[in-house]
Amino acid sequence: MPAAGRVAGAVADEPLVVFTPSGRRGRFPAGTPLLAAARRLGVDLDSVCGGRGICTRCQVRVSEGEFAKHGIVSAEDHLTGLSDRERRQLATRRLKEGHRLSCQARIAGDLVADVPETSQVHRQIVRKRAAARNIRIDPLVRPMYVEVPPPDLAHPAGHLRRLKESLRQGFGVRVTEADLHAVRKLHSTLEAGGYRATAFVRDRRRLVDLRPGFRDRVFGLAVDVGSTTLAVHLCDLLSGEVLASLGRMNPQIRFGEDLMSRVSFAMMNEDGAAEMTQAVREALNELAVEAAAAAGVEPADVLEVAIAGNPVMHHLLLGLDPAPLGFAPFALATDEGTELAAADIGLGLGPAARAYVLPCIAGHVGADAAGVVLSEMPYRKKEITLIVDVGTNAELVLGNAERLLAASSPTGPAFEGAQLSCGQRAAPGVIERVRIDPVTLEPRYRVIGDERWSDEPGWDPAPSGICGSGIVEAIAELFLAGIVHPDGAIDGSLAQRSARVVPDGRTFTYVIRAGEPEIAITQNDVRQIQLAKAALYAGARLLMDRMGIDAVDRVTLAGAFGSQIDPKYALLLGMVPDCEPGRVTSAGNAAGTGARIALLNRRLRRELERRVRGIEKVETAVEPRFQEHFVDAMAIPHRSAPYAKLRAAVDLPPPPPAPAGRATRRRRSGGGARHSR
Amino acid sequence: MPAAGRVAGAVADEPLVVFTPSGRRGRFPAGTPLLAAARRLGVDLDSVCGGRGICTRCQVRVSEGEFAKHGIVSAEDHLTGLSDRERRQLATRRLKEGHRLSCQARIAGDLVADVPETSQVHRQIVRKRAAARNIRIDPLVRPMYVEVPPPDLAHPAGHLRRLKESLRQGFGVRVTEADLHAVRKLHSTLEAGGYRATAFVRDRRRLVDLRPGFRDRVFGLAVDVGSTTLAVHLCDLLSGEVLASLGRMNPQIRFGEDLMSRVSFAMMNEDGAAEMTQAVREALNELAVEAAAAAGVEPADVLEVAIAGNPVMHHLLLGLDPAPLGFAPFALATDEGTELAAADIGLGLGPAARAYVLPCIAGHVGADAAGVVLSEMPYRKKEITLIVDVGTNAELVLGNAERLLAASSPTGPAFEGAQLSCGQRAAPGVIERVRIDPVTLEPRYRVIGDERWSDEPGWDPAPSGICGSGIVEAIAELFLAGIVHPDGAIDGSLAQRSARVVPDGRTFTYVIRAGEPEIAITQNDVRQIQLAKAALYAGARLLMDRMGIDAVDRVTLAGAFGSQIDPKYALLLGMVPDCEPGRVTSAGNAAGTGARIALLNRRLRRELERRVRGIEKVETAVEPRFQEHFVDAMAIPHRSAPYAKLRAAVDLPPPPPAPAGRATRRRRSGGGARHSR
Repeated sequence: MPAAGRVAGAVADEPLVVFTPSGRRGRFPAGTPLLAAARRLGVDLDSVCGGRGICTRCQVRVSEGEFAKHGIVSAEDHLTGLSDRERRQLATRRLKEGHRLSCQARIAGDLVADVPETSQVHRQIVRKRAAARNIRIDPLVRPMYVEVPPPDLAHPAGHLRRLKESLRQGFGVRVTEADLHAVRKLHSTLEAGGYRATAFVRDRRRLVDLRPGFRDRVFGLAVDVGSTTLAVHLCDLLSGEVLASLGRMNPQIRFGEDLMSRVSFAMMNEDGAAEMTQAVREALNELAVEAAAAAGVEPADVLEVAIAGNPVMHHLLLGLDPAPLGFAPFALATDEGTELAAADIGLGLGPAARAYVLPCIAGHVGADAAGVVLSEMPYRKKEITLIVDVGTNAELVLGNAERLLAASSPTGPAFEGAQLSCGQRAAPGVIERVRIDPVTLEPRYRVIGDERWSDEPGWDPAPSGICGSGIVEAIAELFLAGIVHPDGAIDGSLAQRSARVVPDGRTFTYVIRAGEPEIAITQNDVRQIQLAKAALYAGARLLMDRMGIDAVDRVTLAGAFGSQIDPKYALLLGMVPDCEPGRVTSAGNAAGTGARIALLNRRLRRELERRVRGIEKVETAVEPRFQEHFVDAMAIPHRSAPYAKLRAAVDLPPPPPAPAGRATRRRRSGGGARHSR
Repeated sequence: MPAAGRVAGAVADEPLVVFTPSGRRGRFPAGTPLLAAARRLGVDLDSVCGGRGICTRCQVRVSEGEFAKHGIVSAEDHLTGLSDRERRQLATRRLKEGHRLSCQARIAGDLVADVPETSQVHRQIVRKRAAARNIRIDPLVRPMYVEVPPPDLAHPAGHLRRLKESLRQGFGVRVTEADLHAVRKLHSTLEAGGYRATAFVRDRRRLVDLRPGFRDRVFGLAVDVGSTTLAVHLCDLLSGEVLASLGRMNPQIRFGEDLMSRVSFAMMNEDGAAEMTQAVREALNELAVEAAAAAGVEPADVLEVAIAGNPVMHHLLLGLDPAPLGFAPFALATDEGTELAAADIGLGLGPAARAYVLPCIAGHVGADAAGVVLSEMPYRKKEITLIVDVGTNAELVLGNAERLLAASSPTGPAFEGAQLSCGQRAAPGVIERVRIDPVTLEPRYRVIGDERWSDEPGWDPAPSGICGSGIVEAIAELFLAGIVHPDGAIDGSLAQRSARVVPDGRTFTYVIRAGEPEIAITQNDVRQIQLAKAALYAGARLLMDRMGIDAVDRVTLAGAFGSQIDPKYALLLGMVPDCEPGRVTSAGNAAGTGARIALLNRRLRRELERRVRGIEKVETAVEPRFQEHFVDAMAIPHRSAPYAKLRAAVDLPPPPPAPAGRATRRRRSGGGARHSR
């Protein structure tokens, strides 16, 4: 190593190196590779090949010119010249023009080296949603390229021990454990690659897999196991990029539509739980293999899986008996984050894959809610967030950095479109948006997968039904149009004004679309939605009571329903407590996002586990105040809904100056009084 | 808790408690349970029930009278009176008369409490052999009885978390991991036992199993996988007692008699290695289940397995390709201690069982030699021990606390009786002892399983062959009788004196037993034994050269052959270097003993792994000196054998004053010159 310019012992004479953007700085002997300097300073600079000029992940840009800020003059010739490896990598364009490989370039004078985002190990995933934090990538499994000394008669250390020593030298990791299947392939893999291989090391201590030669990618799968749908996202673990997302129905539906009927099936049939376990595992495995194929990735290269799901799904997937979740005290076998071999839950990804199942919060508030918490991170905020994840039950989390509460509310499946006359699960061709003209009482609507409204020219789809969010919108619009009274009754007197309002036994129905199939909102539909929204609201209020607050700073709607519904209608209907309309937002499939975060960042798993343990559980079933809030919340809109603000916010044409408009307003003020069934 | 007699803050006024035999002492507030005092002082005092008066393992005896040594007066009434639980345990005799349960008895005054051996966690197994150290018991898995709070709606911690908390409170262990199968049975087990259960905790951090109610036993299996025989020992992990020992032939013998032919089989047949892996796993599994049945133990209660075996057996058992062990550089996939699920190597013990395979020393010196090292612990001695484990190859370890060397010598299978005219594996009815009258040249012999000599009245067995140690004795006796010359030739001229010496082509044969089957020692038999013993001796000499010594302090013969052979004949024949005859001893199946030690003491595993890494390997195949030593060692006895001392030590009738006796002596001095083939 050249030592030009270095005066022995006079450290202050050694070249000064500053890394940006971290600002870390230090003096190093001339001849020190930039990568070594970065490591000694703890600079976040990637390397998969252990400094051999192969992976090109350690590339940096040396800034030219005077750097008053750092007090040094930086120049390209303050590094040694281009190495052969760098020239080759420039030719292949893997090394960008004007960049240097920090493992090849050695310090020759003062300089400022900029580490681009793409060269950082812990690069961030920027999330578009305003309320969402960016995620730092810090995956459990990392590829590490090594050149292992071949076996030597004089020093008979086994392949594993020589590999470990190479990993220690190249990456500073002390591997203490090794999967047997990885040991099994050691000899053939090392031989195949001429003793050059890429080791896959988990958590910096366990050898989980091995490939001949250089590899710099490794993949993971984020899984959201819903009662209704299964979703998987195949991700590049190093970039965080989602390469493929696939979903399908949960095949357990054939054992029962909702969670409790599946728990019953497990209790009534000796092998019921095992059958459901097998069904969901098989479906997940197929999805996993399909996702790998869609992304052009070998299933065996998927080394990490993170899974979110409600407590019953959590138990069935892990092969735990779900029966105790069917009745008080709703005892979970475990509420902790669970790590196991992916093969143990039937995922045919290869023996190296490990699966992590997020922790549960309580018997009703599962690993799906934990995923939502990880996605939204209310525990890092000062403002008080209410997170609502609507499925068959609604799971609720309320709080901020100081305190978090959780509960579940028995909303039933109405929000998912179940048990409603024309209700359907959200799918293409199903009505999701409804507007009702308060003058003519005529509807217009939109179906999933089509941007046009039904009254636009050329519109032709024949909708097959209406999904949960569509029904919520329809009922809110019926209320705004004066067709549904604040107490939920459909006004039969309007049958005289509109052919849309038709008698149906002793009650009335509003027909959105005549013909085959007819799509209508029945009086019973309105009642089911009233019950569901009252349960949701009552659960939220209970948490607010416990927290001692009257309003929340932010409402986040998670889950499929939460991402479909227009937050303004949710507020209007009184599904959630009062909040500035602009601060009621959808988080999309936050449980799935949480699973993805747990997949990509090992530290955030530990943080989540710690936070989840601190969440206080509120049991709605045994709280007398729940019933009170429930009864109070049946009216439309809820008496405390900030109606005027809302009306202005809802993106409808301004209310016409017709009598119907005024009638609506009058009715609304009537709605301020208490209404019960 | 009563605080009588305690002056606040005046610790010196608190009762003084001394535990014997450790001598640990401290002052404690009156009312402190003795067990709590013992724990605080780090006294080795057992408890399986966590201080609930159930297991009776914590019983101690409070010594009466004046204890000048400790400066205190001890008396029984310096403890609180007998509790109800103690009375009940006295009635069932589980609590011994005059003893107290230290979890029940509370300190009321100064006292000396004696912890009997049976109440110590780390009690010792006393080994009878003079050269063997006693083994302290410290198993990986321990039963821990807990009373877990039932699930509670208000505090929805899962079963696992509540169990962990109970374990922390009762035993001070922080369980951080749990096997999924244990989590699966949590609910049913806790319910079945009324929330009283015994947890089995491994290494003080992993929950591996669970049973309803109180259990205080747990079992383990020590396994020795030899090329020829498989042996298992079922042990009580807490007492160290061997409850059942079983053995059988290694079914891999059908793929090849010796190791190298099995490696060839693996190389020549695509699924050869897999077939052999399956064969040995199946046989071991059957043995394990039989051993459990023989001991009256449920296979699922066997939670720990420790396994020793040579490198090829090690690789085949673990499913690692043995082919690289067939040629230089003899690359092991791993030489480290390997821990895995017992099910992963086909042992049907229940999902909780873990297996530990001892480390290998080198490509020729395997986990069997490591077991021998653990059994003999030369690294704890000042004297220099040579350990010889004779199988198909001889594995050699030489050294002491300062330095350890290892090598393997290509002895071939002659010592196991293979490739000899009448050679048989050691089994009942096979000749194992031979004496030859130097006057009459008549033999007498003994067979395995019969204490009588063939010339005693009423002797009737018809031996079927002669085992390796029998052949070694026969050849040594033939030499002592002057029938075999120092160069190994059978003296054909004696055919005139004895009908036992008969021509056989161009050479002669000595007939031990005429008839069907005839049992004889041919000239080729002598040559095979000469080759084997020369290889063994040369290996040992090579290690001594490397160590820079001319003599060893002790020779330990391990393995089946080593335990059968009379050490004096081994010395006489020149199999091992010179040593005081009394210091050449047999260690029996030391590899199996090593496996048993690894089974019973978790710390000694780590110690072994550390020591094995420090062993210097000497490769006989590439050392030119090996050939020199080998050629030198062909003669009988070896030229440096301390013949006179030996002759006196061998328990024969004193040499007759007949010419034959003198002839023998003359020949021996001739043997002092160099003889080659």
